[in-house]
Amino acid sequence: MKDLKIIRKEIEVVDKELIKLFNERMELIAQLNKENVEDEKREEELIHKNLSLVNKEYVSYYFDFYNNLFNLSKEYQKKKKGL
Amino acid sequence: MKDLKIIRKEIEVVDKELIKLFNERMELIAQLNKENVEDEKREEELIHKNLSLVNKEYVSYYFDFYNNLFNLSKEYQKKKKGL
Repeated sequence: MKDLKIIRKEIEVVDKELIKLFNERMELIAQLNKENVEDEKREEELIHKNLSLVNKEYVSYYFDFYNNLFNLSKEYQKKKKGL
Repeated sequence: MKDLKIIRKEIEVVDKELIKLFNERMELIAQLNKENVEDEKREEELIHKNLSLVNKEYVSYYFDFYNNLFNLSKEYQKKKKGL
């Protein structure tokens, strides 16, 4: 069993990378036109397209993670575009 | 303005990286002992520790993103440890 401190340190490293990607994704979302607000059809497509990349044990958590990411991206996009 | 297809392609690349990190984070969570279930104090610490890494425009969305990630990590951890 790895030491708690080591696991926590590794989680922190992952989180820093996650935040980097979160920033990048939000920047990309901001570049979408008013006309290109992501719709539910595209969400479903993306979620299922990437499903094979997810460890089977985490699938239900992945849906939660991704749906939340979609929802907040849409909120940001709407705010940004004044919708 | 970048072409819609290019932006969407870039979002897909970011998402693949996000999923990779999501898997890694869940694997680390699974390594924590029953005694080390992440508590709210530690959550607060981590959220604020990384706040400086977040683009100011996305701060409220970051809280949403991170709180969701914490909640699903805890759910997984509880399930894994039979809590």
